[in-house]
Amino acid sequence: MFKAVIKADVMKSLVNVVSPITDEVKLTVKPEGVNLVAVDPSHVCMIELVLDKGTFESYEANETEMGIDLDKIKSILKLSSSGEVIAVNQDEERKKLIFKIGNITRHMSLVDTSTMSTPKIPTLNLTSYVEIYASELQKGIKASDNISDHVTFIADKNSFELLCEGDTDSASLRLDDSSISISVDKKIHSMFPLDYLGLMIKALPPDAMLKLELDTDFPVRMTFSLVDGNARVTYLLAPRIES
Amino acid sequence: MFKAVIKADVMKSLVNVVSPITDEVKLTVKPEGVNLVAVDPSHVCMIELVLDKGTFESYEANETEMGIDLDKIKSILKLSSSGEVIAVNQDEERKKLIFKIGNITRHMSLVDTSTMSTPKIPTLNLTSYVEIYASELQKGIKASDNISDHVTFIADKNSFELLCEGDTDSASLRLDDSSISISVDKKIHSMFPLDYLGLMIKALPPDAMLKLELDTDFPVRMTFSLVDGNARVTYLLAPRIES
Amino acid sequence: MFKAVIKADVMKSLVNVVSPITDEVKLTVKPEGVNLVAVDPSHVCMIELVLDKGTFESYEANETEMGIDLDKIKSILKLSSSGEVIAVNQDEERKKLIFKIGNITRHMSLVDTSTMSTPKIPTLNLTSYVEIYASELQKGIKASDNISDHVTFIADKNSFELLCEGDTDSASLRLDDSSISISVDKKIHSMFPLDYLGLMIKALPPDAMLKLELDTDFPVRMTFSLVDGNARVTYLLAPRIES
Repeated sequence: MFKAVIKADVMKSLVNVVSPITDEVKLTVKPEGVNLVAVDPSHVCMIELVLDKGTFESYEANETEMGIDLDKIKSILKLSSSGEVIAVNQDEERKKLIFKIGNITRHMSLVDTSTMSTPKIPTLNLTSYVEIYASELQKGIKASDNISDHVTFIADKNSFELLCEGDTDSASLRLDDSSISISVDKKIHSMFPLDYLGLMIKALPPDAMLKLELDTDFPVRMTFSLVDGNARVTYLLAPRIES
Repeated sequence: MFKAVIKADVMKSLVNVVSPITDEVKLTVKPEGVNLVAVDPSHVCMIELVLDKGTFESYEANETEMGIDLDKIKSILKLSSSGEVIAVNQDEERKKLIFKIGNITRHMSLVDTSTMSTPKIPTLNLTSYVEIYASELQKGIKASDNISDHVTFIADKNSFELLCEGDTDSASLRLDDSSISISVDKKIHSMFPLDYLGLMIKALPPDAMLKLELDTDFPVRMTFSLVDGNARVTYLLAPRIES
Repeated sequence: MFKAVIKADVMKSLVNVVSPITDEVKLTVKPEGVNLVAVDPSHVCMIELVLDKGTFESYEANETEMGIDLDKIKSILKLSSSGEVIAVNQDEERKKLIFKIGNITRHMSLVDTSTMSTPKIPTLNLTSYVEIYASELQKGIKASDNISDHVTFIADKNSFELLCEGDTDSASLRLDDSSISISVDKKIHSMFPLDYLGLMIKALPPDAMLKLELDTDFPVRMTFSLVDGNARVTYLLAPRIES
């Protein structure tokens, strides 16, 4: 059983952060909330999304699983205006979700979850981190466009840099501890594929405060929250190790 | 002879309702106004447009016929700003229309009407109707996107439903007589092709009040008016009859 | 040496007027300002751009030359918001320009100027001219769309006309000396290719006041200024002579 009401704007921001990684997800539903773990098809990046009950206007559920096609959710979101709410009910018998938006009722078939695996979240002991607004990283990603296909995160005690170096041109976003919070006790240097990183960063609300946990040649873990802390997102992105 | 001044915004709304059906029309001009009847190339839908003199800022005409290429009218409308007026004069000798918008003069050749037939408007005795804002139907059409290629109008004494049922998903817009005016004395069920219906509905001003006259497996007649009742539009759309 | 600060909006308007002609330019830098002369690949039109020091927020330079890829400048402009300034420094050793916009640093390789010629500006003795707002010409160009591939400038003592005549349709923009300044002492009639003229005219700020110097079957010279007169643009466009 799953029965909830959610603001259209909230559902949109959640879809935005998941859809760069995958277009089909398995939701694990529990009485206290919903969560999902998904990897992209090439297993380079991963998302974990945890939604407390407070993410919803109202929420009532038993333990269940639901397979969701995100493209369908996107088309349903187009039926709502900003400020509207969407009522969602599970029709367990017919394996459907029923959405109500104003006078519209939309029955959506669920995706069979039996062939969908639950990716295991790797244990990573990352002790260094910086905290930075998504809007800043978005500028750095935009500046990297057409320069190279990978970017490097460089951090030390006092500064953080997103560097993109091509054959002839380069772009760099550089911030020091006067404007961002940095907790790094050594020199860190890690390279990431621009395409994946770009998709993730561009999907974020510009005012989201990101925590970037990183270490040389380790995956980066990016965490942030939405909906007043009720929705928590963790991205993991594998590094590109130079030989 | 045809000599008129029309608001650019009014001409635009008229072109919008005709162009989903056809891109070439024959205007029948009379001293008291202009009208046109057109069918789409596959003879599935029909439009009748009646323009009283009051549609225009000024109007003077003898009986005449004019063949019009609507794509050219669209490009002429792009030369005007909202609030501007367009002066239109017929050059009978050279078979042209002359448009004046500010300092711009645009001579447009007329289309030869000798090969254009005047479709006959079928007589339909439809006694049931509902009245509904275009904006509501537009939501129903949007919700039907990618679900099936046809939609069903279902009506009874107290409710009206636009239903789109696909193999796995469905969308429905449902309104009852507390929010719309319904005059139906039996159960009605008629199916229509989504592509044609969608083009017509999307072209309407959202605040237009549509009268939908319908009967089971009969064409639907949709009428509404623009320009304070001076311009009256009738759409007819053939049903898709299930065997 | 070249070291300047420029408003992003100013740099954008300058790139806009040059890029219809060419996508690679050689800047001639002097202590008192920058200028460039460029022709389009088919040698039909030419631009001369003269930038006084006042075009910049701050400016310091020795004599030098810089080859610039305008597409890269466009992507750099996308990193700035309206109202922001861009600091530009030449790295002579590495043949690069270094742009700073907020926390972003962008190193851009310069284009080798050794193979770029400096076009010679032809001497033209044009004694007739009209002065007209870019917005008016932009309307005339828009009206000419899809009618013919050339337009004619027609001027006499009291009027100026931009005329586009096709096989069946025509468009005309006509202004007389009650609304624009005209200094013409004979009948002038000159035809120009619509594609080139259109690209140039569309690139102008609508409120730019253009001086059009012209004579029958001679090139037209269009001059206007930006940034409070600190940046001066001259376009030359070859006529299309009817045989």
